[in-house]
Order: sequence, then structure tokens, then C-alpha cells
Amino acid sequence: MKGADRKSIVRDQLHEMGVRIYDLLDSGKYPDIEMPSRSVKNIEYDPKLRQYVLGPTSVKRNAKNIKHIRPFTQLVWLASFSKELLSNRKTSTLRDIFYSAQAYNIDFEDQNESDEVITELESILGKAREDFNVYPEERSAIFGDLTIEYTVPGYEGKRLDLTSHPDGVMIGPALTTAAFAQTNAEMVLVIEKGALFTRFVEEKVYKKYNAILIDTVGQPPRSTRYMIRRLHEELGLPVYVFTDADPWGMHIAMVIISGSANAAHLRELTTPDAKWAGVWASDINKYKLPHDPLTELDVKRLFELKSDPRYGEKLWKDEMATFLKYKRKAEQEAFARYGLTYIVDKYLPDKLKLLKEQ
Amino acid sequence: MKGADRKSIVRDQLHEMGVRIYDLLDSGKYPDIEMPSRSVKNIEYDPKLRQYVLGPTSVKRNAKNIKHIRPFTQLVWLASFSKELLSNRKTSTLRDIFYSAQAYNIDFEDQNESDEVITELESILGKAREDFNVYPEERSAIFGDLTIEYTVPGYEGKRLDLTSHPDGVMIGPALTTAAFAQTNAEMVLVIEKGALFTRFVEEKVYKKYNAILIDTVGQPPRSTRYMIRRLHEELGLPVYVFTDADPWGMHIAMVIISGSANAAHLRELTTPDAKWAGVWASDINKYKLPHDPLTELDVKRLFELKSDPRYGEKLWKDEMATFLKYKRKAEQEAFARYGLTYIVDKYLPDKLKLLKEQ
Repeated sequence: MKGADRKSIVRDQLHEMGVRIYDLLDSGKYPDIEMPSRSVKNIEYDPKLRQYVLGPTSVKRNAKNIKHIRPFTQLVWLASFSKELLSNRKTSTLRDIFYSAQAYNIDFEDQNESDEVITELESILGKAREDFNVYPEERSAIFGDLTIEYTVPGYEGKRLDLTSHPDGVMIGPALTTAAFAQTNAEMVLVIEKGALFTRFVEEKVYKKYNAILIDTVGQPPRSTRYMIRRLHEELGLPVYVFTDADPWGMHIAMVIISGSANAAHLRELTTPDAKWAGVWASDINKYKLPHDPLTELDVKRLFELKSDPRYGEKLWKDEMATFLKYKRKAEQEAFARYGLTYIVDKYLPDKLKLLKEQ
Repeated sequence: MKGADRKSIVRDQLHEMGVRIYDLLDSGKYPDIEMPSRSVKNIEYDPKLRQYVLGPTSVKRNAKNIKHIRPFTQLVWLASFSKELLSNRKTSTLRDIFYSAQAYNIDFEDQNESDEVITELESILGKAREDFNVYPEERSAIFGDLTIEYTVPGYEGKRLDLTSHPDGVMIGPALTTAAFAQTNAEMVLVIEKGALFTRFVEEKVYKKYNAILIDTVGQPPRSTRYMIRRLHEELGLPVYVFTDADPWGMHIAMVIISGSANAAHLRELTTPDAKWAGVWASDINKYKLPHDPLTELDVKRLFELKSDPRYGEKLWKDEMATFLKYKRKAEQEAFARYGLTYIVDKYLPDKLKLLKEQ
């Protein structure tokens, strides 16, 4: 679905939410809002969707209850402010929202409190905050054979070829809401770090493999996860994720594939068919990579992930066992010990062949 | 100077460095390398250049001295590797250099050691590492009426209009080395944070003020400081820097203007004529901005900066005094309390008028 269509659906949802509250008030009743509970007890793993989802429990905010008046008012204000953003086609950030509230004499103790209310609105609408034009600061990048068509004001209908800037094209509000106009790409390569992303551009990996490259800059912002899903769903492209060989890199791949527990109230942020293409724990031995010992924190993290239902498949279990057996980790850049292009000339084709045969 | 010309000068410098060592060896002498000392004693503030510079003291690495053999070898390897990078028109990162050394059996204890040798090579050449194609990971962004012409392989002669992507165009190796082909811009607005950068794009500040916008994402990477200087020197544009109203934001402006002590061995990273356009400590009172108390760390930092020769001018002294008097700080986003566009409609024109009158 194009960005503009999604936004008009959300605006309609916000409008209905307001009408309902207005009608309740108009008929002399205390207004209320019902929303799914996001408490840990109500978060469960859905093996079919391959992500965490919210269970059936819901909670109600009622203006009759004096304890509810504050969060109820904050929520209604946020809904109205978000509708304004959408109507004026402006975007905002989490931090902006916190300060903007003061213009309306809506009190938030700190940004944690406003962030929490933003998450509540997400769970009511079943839509990510980006859908009501609230964006985080972080930006990742994309590069490859894909021409997009903008939908943001002043740029409607304008197109950009994503190979037009070799440093990578920033994934911000304009890119996330653009339509996919033209592509001959055959796969998406998602990369944890800028260094390897630049290497892949310089070595023309995007040409050799007809690949769209994405630099997540660590754990990807949600708008980037949403873009990865769109590339898979709308263009039918396979997605391969390259990370460091450590529990944190592995989990970057997992969050792209299966999402996170604190986004259990959202769909459309996961790409269950995406594949973790390494660097695996077993690659450290296989390729004799320079490595560092796992820290205590790394080991603790691995034990946490072992009991996580998302890590149930064989690949993950085996790699976690290998991490714990050798207690070693390695970075993507470690391949540079065989020369700057080894990762492109040898590791990448080997790994893609292996994953396609599976 | 265009990127390609700069690079060929550096390649010549590296070549000469190699020839000299070769000739010394060939004539049966121990090779040595002389470089400016970067010890604190040899760093002084140059009021004319308005930046820190290195004094006259130099140090010598001599292969005759057994203690020098390790750093001498590392340095010669780095010079040779950098020449290879330039000849093959490839780029690398600080982290890549650390790992690449292993391919040549050059031993670095950790990345600190390789980073140090990279700084030594900078001081010998008097050029930033970006000039020998070693880039950091961080990326900032640029947007506005400027058409660039690339010089990187595969893109020679291709042009990009920097308004072509409304999320901002990434400042990476390709952009930094591009030539400026066409512009009608009249000023450069440098902004500390993505939120305000996006606001300025959305509110068409680049059109209203004919401004090129730069998002530094905090303390700007050196390639971004180099770009800011180029925009000022090559295009004759005035530069205004917008930061948070706290000692850290103030110092971002100062580093853009006067550079940093640990880059005292470099020129061409400063823009002494750039102006700090706020948010000033005095703006917190003037605009009745939502504010937070200064932390102990903030206050400590202010006392450090007070004794820094770069902070000698009246504006800085007054603002530091105001910070310390009221013990308050505020963020750029704090203007959102007056509505999302107040900073564009009111603050920006007020401040530009004030700075132009000075």
C-alpha cells in the first residue's frame, strides 16, 4: 500500500476515535477508550505469524475514574495532535511531541511519559507511530536498483533512482512513504554497519548480485524494518541480513525477521522469510577470523536468548551453542585480514549459495 | 580544490615518503621519518588562524633505535596501504585499517594503536585521513540548492541536485570529494539535530532563505566540518550554526568555527567566520523556553571552557556567564512549545537579522 493511502486510513481512524468521544460527551456520558493490554502477561509468541503478539486482554481508560483523567487527557490530546500532523502533512519526533504538549497545557512529567502514551495510541490504532507522522531521529540508508516515487508535499510524483548517490540514500519520512516505481533488483542485502555497506557499494555488489543494499546502522529503526518488509512483500525479493558474529548482531537479524516483544501490538514490522546470512559463530572457525573473547555480558545475553521462543530453529540453536562452546565473537570487518575485497569475492557468494540451497 | 586533485597531491606525498625511505636503505643507511610533535607542550592557540596549531618541536622515528622499529614499521605500512587505497580508488574505515594490517602481518595491539598511527600519518602529510581515503562510520546530511559533480569511480561527471531527496543527502566519501557545480544559495545553516533539520526542510527554510542545510547529528564528523569550510571558502557563503543551549551544543559550534586541540596538526577543518546562531543561554529567558537545570557535569564543562583561549570573545563569555548565573539549559526542540513552526517563523528570522547587523 502506498504511503498516502495508509495515512488517510489512520486519519479516518483518528477521526472516528474523536467522534466516539464527542458523542459520549454529547449524550451526557463519561467518555472512555479501550485498548489492548501490553502487560507482560498479555504478550505471547505466535508461531504462525512468527512474532510476538498481544493476547485478548484489554484495558479501559474511563474519564469517570479520577486516576484515569490524566492519561486519558494525554491520549486524547495526542490523537488530536497526530490528526493535525496528518492533515497538515507535517512530521514530528518523539522529543517534539513532548515539548509540543506544553503549547496545549498538556502536562507530561518527562519524555518517558509521552513516549508511553505514543505507544498506547499505536496499540489502539494497530499502527506504528510513523503512520501518524511521528519519527525517531535515527536514520539508516539504502542503495540499489530501485526508483521510488515520493508522496510527501512538494515532491508528489517526483522520482529518485536509489543509485543516484553512492554514499547511500537516507531512509527518512520521505523515503519510507514513497511508492516503488521501478526495479530490476533480485535480492535485498541488509548490513549492520556503514563500513561494509560502503564496501558493498564500492565493490559493485549491487550490480554483481542485482541487490538492493540497506545499512541499518546497528539495530534498525522501525521505519527501516518496515521498508525491508515492503521490499519483500511488494517486490517479492528475498532478504539476507549480515551482522557481526556476536549475540547483539544475531539479535539485529532476529528483530528484522521476527520483531520485538515491545512491538507486540504491531504488525508489518517483521519479515519472517528474511535469512540471517552471518557472520555466524561457526564462521569464526571456518574462516579463521580475528576474534575477541565473549564478555560476561555477551554470555548472559546468550542465555537470555536461549529461552526466547523466537530462537527455536536449528540454525539459531546451533550457532548459540557454538558461541558458548568457543566463547568467541568477531566483527564483519574482521574479513579485512584477507584483504578488503575478500568478504565480497569469497564470503558473500559462498553464503548466498548455501542459503539458497536450504 | 576538487577532491580528485587533492587526492593526487596526497598520493605524490606518499610516493615521495616511500622513495626517501627506499633511497636511505639503498645507500646503506637506517631509514627515519620526522614528524611534528603532538604532545600537549607543542599545541598552542593561534589567534590569527583562530585555531589550535602545533608548535615547532618535531620528533624522529629512526629504524636504528630498537624501540622505534615497531611504530616505524606500522607507519610505513599504513603509508603504503593508504597509497594502495588511493591508487585503487577504494575507501576504508578506522576499523578496517586495524584488521587489514593482519593481512600484512603488521601487528596492532588494538584499534587505539592503529588510530594513533593514522593520526601520525595525518601530521606528517598535514592532511586529514579522509584525504588518504580513511573515513569514520558516522554520517551527517545536507540539503539545499546545490548541484554537485562526483569524482568517485563509476560516477565521474555525474551530477546530483541536493534537493533531490527530502530526507537529506548523506555526507559520505562520494559527497565530500564532489565538486560544486551549480548553486544559487546565499547561506549555510548548520543544525545539530535531525529533528530540526527535517523541520527546516518541511517548512521550506531552504527556499525562504536560499539556504543550504546541514545536519551534523551531534558533534560533526571531520568530513562534515571540511564540507562546511568548502561551502564557505569556495562559494563565499556565510555559515550559521544552530545547537542546543547547553555547553555541549555551544562547543559543537566552537569546533566548527575553530577546530579542536587534537586536530591541531591539521588545517582546513575550521570555518573561523562561521557564527553561533544559538540557542544561546540568554535565549532561554528571552523566549521563555522550557528548560532543565544544568547538571554537575555541565557546570564542570563550562568551567573548563572558560579557560579555553577559543572562548575569549564577548559573545561566548557573556553566554557562559548566563549559563552559570541561571544554571539552565534548553534544547532546540523546546521551541515546539509555541507550535512546530515558531522556530522557523520567529526565532530564525530574529536571529539572522541580529547576526547580520553585528
